[in-house]
Amino acid sequence: MKPLIMQSDFGYSDGAVSAMHGVAYGVDSDLPIEDLTHNIPPYDVWEGSCRLAQTLAYWPAGSVFVSVVDPGVGSDRLSVVAKTKSGHFVVTPDNGTLTHIAVTYGLDELREIDESVNRLPGSNHSYTFHGRDIYAYTGARLASGKITFAQVGPALETEKAIMLPVMKPRIEGGKAFGTIDTHDVRYGSLWTNIPRELFLDLGAKMGEYVRVHIENQLGDVYSAPLKYVRSFADVSVGEPLIYTNSLDNMAIAINRGSFAMAYSVGQGTQWKVDFEYPLDDSPLV
Amino acid sequence: MKPLIMQSDFGYSDGAVSAMHGVAYGVDSDLPIEDLTHNIPPYDVWEGSCRLAQTLAYWPAGSVFVSVVDPGVGSDRLSVVAKTKSGHFVVTPDNGTLTHIAVTYGLDELREIDESVNRLPGSNHSYTFHGRDIYAYTGARLASGKITFAQVGPALETEKAIMLPVMKPRIEGGKAFGTIDTHDVRYGSLWTNIPRELFLDLGAKMGEYVRVHIENQLGDVYSAPLKYVRSFADVSVGEPLIYTNSLDNMAIAINRGSFAMAYSVGQGTQWKVDFEYPLDDSPLV
Amino acid sequence: MKPLIMQSDFGYSDGAVSAMHGVAYGVDSDLPIEDLTHNIPPYDVWEGSCRLAQTLAYWPAGSVFVSVVDPGVGSDRLSVVAKTKSGHFVVTPDNGTLTHIAVTYGLDELREIDESVNRLPGSNHSYTFHGRDIYAYTGARLASGKITFAQVGPALETEKAIMLPVMKPRIEGGKAFGTIDTHDVRYGSLWTNIPRELFLDLGAKMGEYVRVHIENQLGDVYSAPLKYVRSFADVSVGEPLIYTNSLDNMAIAINRGSFAMAYSVGQGTQWKVDFEYPLDDSPLV
Repeated sequence: MKPLIMQSDFGYSDGAVSAMHGVAYGVDSDLPIEDLTHNIPPYDVWEGSCRLAQTLAYWPAGSVFVSVVDPGVGSDRLSVVAKTKSGHFVVTPDNGTLTHIAVTYGLDELREIDESVNRLPGSNHSYTFHGRDIYAYTGARLASGKITFAQVGPALETEKAIMLPVMKPRIEGGKAFGTIDTHDVRYGSLWTNIPRELFLDLGAKMGEYVRVHIENQLGDVYSAPLKYVRSFADVSVGEPLIYTNSLDNMAIAINRGSFAMAYSVGQGTQWKVDFEYPLDDSPLV
Repeated sequence: MKPLIMQSDFGYSDGAVSAMHGVAYGVDSDLPIEDLTHNIPPYDVWEGSCRLAQTLAYWPAGSVFVSVVDPGVGSDRLSVVAKTKSGHFVVTPDNGTLTHIAVTYGLDELREIDESVNRLPGSNHSYTFHGRDIYAYTGARLASGKITFAQVGPALETEKAIMLPVMKPRIEGGKAFGTIDTHDVRYGSLWTNIPRELFLDLGAKMGEYVRVHIENQLGDVYSAPLKYVRSFADVSVGEPLIYTNSLDNMAIAINRGSFAMAYSVGQGTQWKVDFEYPLDDSPLV
Repeated sequence: MKPLIMQSDFGYSDGAVSAMHGVAYGVDSDLPIEDLTHNIPPYDVWEGSCRLAQTLAYWPAGSVFVSVVDPGVGSDRLSVVAKTKSGHFVVTPDNGTLTHIAVTYGLDELREIDESVNRLPGSNHSYTFHGRDIYAYTGARLASGKITFAQVGPALETEKAIMLPVMKPRIEGGKAFGTIDTHDVRYGSLWTNIPRELFLDLGAKMGEYVRVHIENQLGDVYSAPLKYVRSFADVSVGEPLIYTNSLDNMAIAINRGSFAMAYSVGQGTQWKVDFEYPLDDSPLV
């Protein structure tokens, strides 16, 4: 028995999430049923992909995630279960939701859900709630051991999984380049896709200034030298900072303020960021 | 042991829901405690009634629902437990919350909660939080088998349960008439109370156009021929559609848009809808 | 095995809460994991303190609360576990979160978390998510019996715990004085820190009028005689009232309206309230 962890863009205001829980409970009343978040913005596959990668490693290997951000429900998009190299399972429409999981952990195996056997009995006339009828049902059967991974359905090549375009972080000419993958929503911090190890290749030490430059498709949005520190409390209240986030990637924030709101910064591959060190023009410290 | 599923208009921002969970946990630490939603708009008994009907069938027979939308707390409204014909239990103030459950599943038995025995010990001076002191406590005792249904309190005639006025869907002169019961909140889809089987009596086939007409107490709100399809992906992005929702009732939506916001459509019996087929004036397909 | 109940200002829109649940589940897969609320406004230690006091007594003695409202993460603020005189545990940064717990239940013992042993293995490079790496991990180990309270770390004097300033409620010259601790958020009711027993010393009887006076640092905000009643249903819809809330303290509300919105009333020690009885100028009843 492994835990089942659900994510969706259904929100918390109607009965959709509870119906999925009920279906899973009906499969096995001993199954641990958990939620990641159901506040993914409607249809935002990118955000769903990021949140899975943010959370997955904190659950034991074998845990089964169900992610339902499914703008193509009823189309010919596939329903799949991926097994990551870390040994976790993700049940999802094959629409890009696996992108960050693949980048961060790697995909080990991929199977298409055979809906002729893996579908809630009696749900054949329902075409708009695969989250309940197929994904929660199949995820619960897999987590509870009612079916094996092989019984999900036929194997697919992992390379065939649909991936959203991402930009690989890199170092070039004294700058580390990447994108702003997502935000720490409540605090307005920017989470880049640049790993700490890569950033450290610039040579910057804690307490030193590093120039942060942000641009989107319309041009420059921000450029200033910020202090690279261990945590928020190492700068003054209201002061911006560079730090390592809880995923071991570089992040940018304002201590007790919202960097995202202060400078109207969004997320996704069109939001490019670079860190420059040493500075051409070091500020007076 | 059966699961206990809670619903309320308490929101998720204070300790009210957790206090109810704590009381239930104190009754039996092995009890599965789940939530339907706590985002019912304050005092909105109609919405609470709809959400119960939306979710109930996806939990096993014997499951106990606690629903606390209770604008009359402290008045002489009764506290009751209903047993549905599907074998589910609903613990609630008797204020109309049972309306859609009664229409959809039928009420099998009804009992008044005897508060002299079914009340959290020591809560006698609390008059404003029956959700915690009476409903969660009684629901947990029933779900865990600490009391039988008969021990809830004296039987009432099911016909005596308070019902909100509803309009029975019907077919007349080539039109199917009903009301907009509720919305699929996150996506702005309109969920009517017209069952698929009734709608199909019009003779419309998938892919054909059916005229949708919506009015409220002030007059016409919408009138246009829409395509009747299987799912969202069967129309273009931004195109409106008619489909069967996850409760097997007819629904109206815009693919990746919000029909409710686009035309300012609300919910309840004052929001009348009819489907007309065949059209007097078929659009050019 | 005791339940673990989590509270934070992380919100419900990303993976932070699920990561904490995952860490706790990894400690012991049989541990009951619950949530109080994660909608504490960012950095609002006062609100976190109030919500703990509101909920704690409804969970069995021995239950372990984890509260993470932590604006000073990464500073030299201590990480502690308090044991209340009621036998509950609270795992929290020592930043004032224990204030209302101390006032309402009393602190029995206090220990500093020894982070050299009580830290999620492998999280040594993470400085910004102690909720996951230290608090959820330590709370889960304590609740599951993996460590004893003594194994949390060295004992501190309970008097050393950081307390936010509070005003002790009192009676003087026919008036009961206190502050507005918090709101019943969904309904806009004001929850004072004046216990029912103290209020009753004024001599007011149910059904009688009592003058409510509210002021903040800028001056008077409200002054009017309101009826002291048992519950909302004892006044008309739209009528204000004085009642005893679910914590046995005095509260002020509008039946089916929002007192807080109607008069723009906030919360905290700068929001002072007094009840006067008998009235100098009784209204005509």
